Amino acid sequence: MPAFLLDKLKCLKNIERMARKAEKHHLSLRPHSKTHQSAEISSWFRDFGVSGITVSSFPMASYFAQAGWDDILVAFPFLPGELESLQVLSENCSVSILVDSPAALPFLNHIRNPAGFYIDVDTGYGRTGVRTENPELIEQIILKARQNPKLQFRGFYCHAGHSYKFKTQEERERIHQKARSELVGLKKQFSEHGPRILYGDTPNCSTQNDFRGIDEITPGNFVFYDLVQHGLGACSLEEIAVALECQVAGNYMHKGQIVIHGGGVHFSKESLNINGRTVYGRLVQPDKGGIFTPGPNAWLTNLSQEHGVLEASTEVFNQLSIGDTLLFLPVHSCLTANLAKEYRTLDGDRITNIHSI
Amino acid sequence: MPAFLLDKLKCLKNIERMARKAEKHHLSLRPHSKTHQSAEISSWFRDFGVSGITVSSFPMASYFAQAGWDDILVAFPFLPGELESLQVLSENCSVSILVDSPAALPFLNHIRNPAGFYIDVDTGYGRTGVRTENPELIEQIILKARQNPKLQFRGFYCHAGHSYKFKTQEERERIHQKARSELVGLKKQFSEHGPRILYGDTPNCSTQNDFRGIDEITPGNFVFYDLVQHGLGACSLEEIAVALECQVAGNYMHKGQIVIHGGGVHFSKESLNINGRTVYGRLVQPDKGGIFTPGPNAWLTNLSQEHGVLEASTEVFNQLSIGDTLLFLPVHSCLTANLAKEYRTLDGDRITNIHSI
Repeated sequence: MPAFLLDKLKCLKNIERMARKAEKHHLSLRPHSKTHQSAEISSWFRDFGVSGITVSSFPMASYFAQAGWDDILVAFPFLPGELESLQVLSENCSVSILVDSPAALPFLNHIRNPAGFYIDVDTGYGRTGVRTENPELIEQIILKARQNPKLQFRGFYCHAGHSYKFKTQEERERIHQKARSELVGLKKQFSEHGPRILYGDTPNCSTQNDFRGIDEITPGNFVFYDLVQHGLGACSLEEIAVALECQVAGNYMHKGQIVIHGGGVHFSKESLNINGRTVYGRLVQPDKGGIFTPGPNAWLTNLSQEHGVLEASTEVFNQLSIGDTLLFLPVHSCLTANLAKEYRTLDGDRITNIHSI
Repeated sequence: MPAFLLDKLKCLKNIERMARKAEKHHLSLRPHSKTHQSAEISSWFRDFGVSGITVSSFPMASYFAQAGWDDILVAFPFLPGELESLQVLSENCSVSILVDSPAALPFLNHIRNPAGFYIDVDTGYGRTGVRTENPELIEQIILKARQNPKLQFRGFYCHAGHSYKFKTQEERERIHQKARSELVGLKKQFSEHGPRILYGDTPNCSTQNDFRGIDEITPGNFVFYDLVQHGLGACSLEEIAVALECQVAGNYMHKGQIVIHGGGVHFSKESLNINGRTVYGRLVQPDKGGIFTPGPNAWLTNLSQEHGVLEASTEVFNQLSIGDTLLFLPVHSCLTANLAKEYRTLDGDRITNIHSI
């Protein structure tokens, strides 16, 4: 079966690099843990002074609370069906949630324990969040929330996800600086409430160097990185810390293809467009130091449920036989990791995650 | 959390329809169980005389063997790392595997129990399989396999996956008839070995009516169906037996969007192109009889890890509030089901699957 390999040294370096950057810019680091979904990997952040994490759902929050985390931001708009989960979680944990509408506040009327909330702000990504052009709505949320003494306004949260879609370096800069300046504007406008500013996705946190006015960053993907991040210039290929190990199921050199055991249920169907071709993973080669060294320019160009098709040149691959092992960088490591029931380090150690139970 | 809903009545009707069709054409039905991956759902096939199943991996085979199935085809080219799984499985189960190269046979030299194999045949799909133009290779495999008394040649297997890619009805017919006639040709050519012919994907088995010469069909997706199958004319929208139930996380009518809790980790990132737009699911409405009645023409047009974006018209959706429940037909039910830890029937019963453990 395909195995999810983790180069622990590269992963630790990715964590250290981001922690040092946060330190340099006087930012708290509250890593998003939806990428690794692993108690063990989250514990590696402790050595770098991290004491709070971000997650994307209440089941994930519960999992990490059981692993000892007691300061958790659930970075998803709060839903009424989650009230009981919030009640239980907030008994022993400082929990924050996201709100982007006054309509969400009544669901929180009967919370038993104190909980914090951040107002989710949209600086142009256009998914969730109050638009920064709408401070009246923000004011409304803050005022309405004050009627609930257990509910504490903590600040503003922004996931500038359009940082994944820039076309030029100027546009990338503009996206970041617009988000930053609008968040700083809100911080000033609502200064009486002492709001903290939480910001940051992996592309911005990896590439930007102006974080003035921001208090905390919440990137997630950087712990592993992947081909998407590489395409955005957020990491080098060598910094990608994970790969899927798959076996050759067939060698069809008459058509320039290798079929591997590794499909949509292992990689996910997330794809990238590389020179007009849809691709699902990139072949890499093991080397003595770390596993993931870019090798020949060979890509997975088709995935069905369990099969993957590798387009290959005869020269490179005519030696490959059924059962041989190949390594592939994933397009989107969050989704690939979500399909793995465990990770395996290069030393053969097993690292459990939320799906290992 | 998003829930995977199963309309059991529709599912049973889908099973019955395919079983009746198999009966009418004197075909055995060996349903592919990678779609539902559920022991309970597989048991529903028993009432229709089904006694053998198809799976796509050895872990799946073990799961169904534990549920009482004793005739299992693992429809994936055999890999050397699977020898021990085969040994264990074949102790109490009639196991068949796929082979498409003489290079795979040495891995089977030391099997302790009898096992059958089918030669995987490629009639134009171009993924795995021996090309029908290459009967010498088939002969070579059969002769080499005879050196192993525990290994029994059972026949030919063909997944004509290019039935998902036809452009015209004529092309669809051509794909099916080419596959059928080439398989029948092999059956005659190798008649001394009494080969059985196994064929069939959901589109062909749902739409074709000429199965002369074929012995068994192995479709899988028809148990649930989905938007891909509907697009191929293999089912009506009303025959799709599954939907994802998701809550509204935000109503952003100023931009014509609803955000739901339901993302790539719930739907999978499988997409369809509908009139130039990439879509990940279609809104449907509950009705009194069954749940999944096509409603307004509204689609999920973006998915991130936990969020889904529904493009919606103001008229239809201005009444929707945070926490309201919406139902969505999945693009590819196999991959969506693979992400669910259980299914829920309309009566609220829980149906476990391979991920429920």
